[in-house]
Amino acid sequence: MAERSRQRGLTALGRHPERGHDDFETIAAILDAGLVCHVGVLASEQEQARRNDRQPVVIPTIYGRIDRDLFLHGSAVARWMNDASKVARICVTVTIVDGLVLARSAFNHSMNYRSVVMFGEAVRVENQEQKLRALEAVTEHVCPGRWNDARKPTEQELKTTLVLRVPIVEASAKIRSGPPKDFDFDMGAGIWAGVIPITTVRGEAIPDPALDAGIATPAYATMRAFG
Amino acid sequence: MAERSRQRGLTALGRHPERGHDDFETIAAILDAGLVCHVGVLASEQEQARRNDRQPVVIPTIYGRIDRDLFLHGSAVARWMNDASKVARICVTVTIVDGLVLARSAFNHSMNYRSVVMFGEAVRVENQEQKLRALEAVTEHVCPGRWNDARKPTEQELKTTLVLRVPIVEASAKIRSGPPKDFDFDMGAGIWAGVIPITTVRGEAIPDPALDAGIATPAYATMRAFG
Repeated sequence: MAERSRQRGLTALGRHPERGHDDFETIAAILDAGLVCHVGVLASEQEQARRNDRQPVVIPTIYGRIDRDLFLHGSAVARWMNDASKVARICVTVTIVDGLVLARSAFNHSMNYRSVVMFGEAVRVENQEQKLRALEAVTEHVCPGRWNDARKPTEQELKTTLVLRVPIVEASAKIRSGPPKDFDFDMGAGIWAGVIPITTVRGEAIPDPALDAGIATPAYATMRAFG
Repeated sequence: MAERSRQRGLTALGRHPERGHDDFETIAAILDAGLVCHVGVLASEQEQARRNDRQPVVIPTIYGRIDRDLFLHGSAVARWMNDASKVARICVTVTIVDGLVLARSAFNHSMNYRSVVMFGEAVRVENQEQKLRALEAVTEHVCPGRWNDARKPTEQELKTTLVLRVPIVEASAKIRSGPPKDFDFDMGAGIWAGVIPITTVRGEAIPDPALDAGIATPAYATMRAFG
């Protein structure tokens, strides 16, 4: 599925072609395991002319997936959301760091990670029902089980929320795992080498100080596992 | 220090001006506590003409800081590094997620986070001594104490490594912390609200299966704390 972007060289694999994965299942699994994405947006041509600059802005935000669509949301007055829905193409990157890879040589130090880089047009979701489904997907991605408990958006709240849909079509994944790979001549140098695993974990839920007495912490807020 | 970019609207504060911080100490502390950054690069004009597209690419990578400079490194054949050093301005974003903020209304759900968004020109570091210092800063940022143990880069390895310097001048931080903020009319609705803390932690070091017997795991690989 990444053929188009690979051909264009946008996600060209350099020194490590073995890290590339193009199948939807791998890409979807990484998107589902991630927590935030980083969205690369180019200011609209009009804005760029006004600002007299030409450069991307990278914004962290949460997201949700429904089948082959990724959904972003934000305030309707957020500049990046408006830029994203006006300019031709954006980039969405999801990165999960799994470990520090300490090789014997500084040169061969690396990271274990899973990442997805996606390109596409961000399309405004205008239909209220679709907007609600997208917001549910975003909420459930970050905290599965929460949507049903929360007070749902009013019509007015929906109006002030922008939802963007990015089709998962031009997407590619990169994965590195396993021990360091050193040059033969560095082996036996007496230098420690290995991997320091890195994980993102949820801590114990902190109830709102203003919480009414007698409201128990729900199960989805006590889950320790992630992704 | 972010005056220039705020004026341009690049990091304009929207709904939450109270989250913005412009002082260098706050920005440096977030950069130092982060692990990876996401770099937004626009393909060079020549490349864009060849590809017939115009869009940013967002790449995750590690980084290091020395005083008021941020350093990125990568393979000299990596397209994004070459694009970054050719085009006028890049964006570097560092995001630390501190928690999920579950408000009573879906609308007021939020995240606790610390983030820095930087704009600037990426300048190639050509001087060998400076290049080594930058690589040391990158290594020490990710794994303090490792640089002294690792086999240092050879002249040839340095040649195949590109190091970019981005001055920390047009930078701004955003921080959200604390409990959810709900509308008055949502209080007392009997809905649980609170914060689920999120942290990134190091696990127990996994020695390289090819490690020579008798090499003990160094202290910096057993540290559990992060940032």
